[in-house]
Amino acid sequence: MRGNELDGGVYLSGAREQNGRLFLVGVGPGDPRELTSWARAAIAGSDLIIGLKPRIELVGGLIEGKEVKFTGISEDETGSLTGIEQEVTWAELAIQEARKGKTVALLSAGDAGIYGMAGLVFEVLQKSEEKIEVEVVPGITALNAAAARLGAPLMQDFAVVSLSDLLTPWEITAKRLEAAARSDFVIVLYNPRTQHERRCWQITKAQKILSKHRPPSTPVGLVNNIGREDEKKILTTLGRMLEHDIGLLTTIVIGNSSTFVYGDRLVTPRGYHGEYSNGKWSRYL
Amino acid sequence: MRGNELDGGVYLSGAREQNGRLFLVGVGPGDPRELTSWARAAIAGSDLIIGLKPRIELVGGLIEGKEVKFTGISEDETGSLTGIEQEVTWAELAIQEARKGKTVALLSAGDAGIYGMAGLVFEVLQKSEEKIEVEVVPGITALNAAAARLGAPLMQDFAVVSLSDLLTPWEITAKRLEAAARSDFVIVLYNPRTQHERRCWQITKAQKILSKHRPPSTPVGLVNNIGREDEKKILTTLGRMLEHDIGLLTTIVIGNSSTFVYGDRLVTPRGYHGEYSNGKWSRYL
Repeated sequence: MRGNELDGGVYLSGAREQNGRLFLVGVGPGDPRELTSWARAAIAGSDLIIGLKPRIELVGGLIEGKEVKFTGISEDETGSLTGIEQEVTWAELAIQEARKGKTVALLSAGDAGIYGMAGLVFEVLQKSEEKIEVEVVPGITALNAAAARLGAPLMQDFAVVSLSDLLTPWEITAKRLEAAARSDFVIVLYNPRTQHERRCWQITKAQKILSKHRPPSTPVGLVNNIGREDEKKILTTLGRMLEHDIGLLTTIVIGNSSTFVYGDRLVTPRGYHGEYSNGKWSRYL
Repeated sequence: MRGNELDGGVYLSGAREQNGRLFLVGVGPGDPRELTSWARAAIAGSDLIIGLKPRIELVGGLIEGKEVKFTGISEDETGSLTGIEQEVTWAELAIQEARKGKTVALLSAGDAGIYGMAGLVFEVLQKSEEKIEVEVVPGITALNAAAARLGAPLMQDFAVVSLSDLLTPWEITAKRLEAAARSDFVIVLYNPRTQHERRCWQITKAQKILSKHRPPSTPVGLVNNIGREDEKKILTTLGRMLEHDIGLLTTIVIGNSSTFVYGDRLVTPRGYHGEYSNGKWSRYL
């Protein structure tokens, strides 16, 4: 149905009668406190749990007595398959097992719907014409979690850009960075380095593009290994951000023209029309 | 400290010794299953809960035996204060009560850090020079929740734009919509109508701007009253979206050039470089 023109509105149905059931579960960035009740319930109600070992270990006691399939490739290992090929095999496995009538939970870091496994599962389903019931369980993604750790940088419009060039040509990414910088979006960067080659040219180029439109003093927050034991937060500036440790698991938040630093927090005020001052809210315009 | 230049990186500290404690808690869009364990723990561990009545009712049993201050103005009521002035009084109240040594939970719909209460609290704190410990507890926001209900539209870079012109001049919003549309971001729209006047010119203008850059057949998902009992999802197109019910509590997701419809789902494939076909992943480039 790709490319189909919709004729004025499809009202979506509720649960359908189909073989098996597949939960696409976002388990948050790594801290078990960032799991939702819904994610817990989906995992607890599944027969089979599929996911990377660190994701599955995160949910601990919830998987006791259940069938578990580790996808077998951790963040630190590389196989002969590329990342996306590995993910295709997990999506296929999850669909096949649900097809047999099982209730399956496929775990994604963060939110399965934000650069996660959800889109790929629908792509595989569409091409294979399998009919199973799929429920996407939303999760806390790096943008929610990093913003909270840093303070309140996302109080205005923001753009989220992945710097990985594995699936998106760099020219498109560059164009998006340019557009977001020019129109004063707060910018959240995912995947500043790619997994396989640990290249850092992307973040260097991104910094150069953003610097054409924002001064070097623009506040920037980096959160490394978010939700994990070695989580580290750094406040820096656009001019000096490359002096800091930026790794595979760093989330970067670039302030807009009104973002400021308060103590150890990055704060974007809510809009341009007013300010809190002398104990009251004043409108500028 | 607004506008301060950072000198190359502030390494953020952990908990500090201060008077009182304030949790800024995102409670999700409305469905209690979308609360995180962290939000539950923050509420359970607080002496005083402050929030809109519907938010507080959402957390039900967690507040038994606690002091509760309803902010007294529900979504359907208007007072003599504007929305932002009301929010300032709640922020001040929460800070004052924490200042007395209490542990206070201030509840926001969705994520307190995304168009929520978090930024305002830091603005008030900065100007009043109060020192209290503030912890932002991230939550499932409309973009996570709406994307999950609709399928998997946020698998590529996306821009989040609020159409409210109460705090942001429309020219800035228009410029951002233009930039996001031109550079093939998936676009999430918050606040398509404003609370006080129930105006709809914003969404009409937004649709016109987006239509300059995307064909009328572009898939669009609307989710009304997300997380509530009367939640309703609609799949439509950019050309026909205005024929549908768009209210104060509608979240809108506009697909990019590669977003497609699969059954009753809106799916953006992961990037431009490959496709799942005939049981395997093929790279285009």
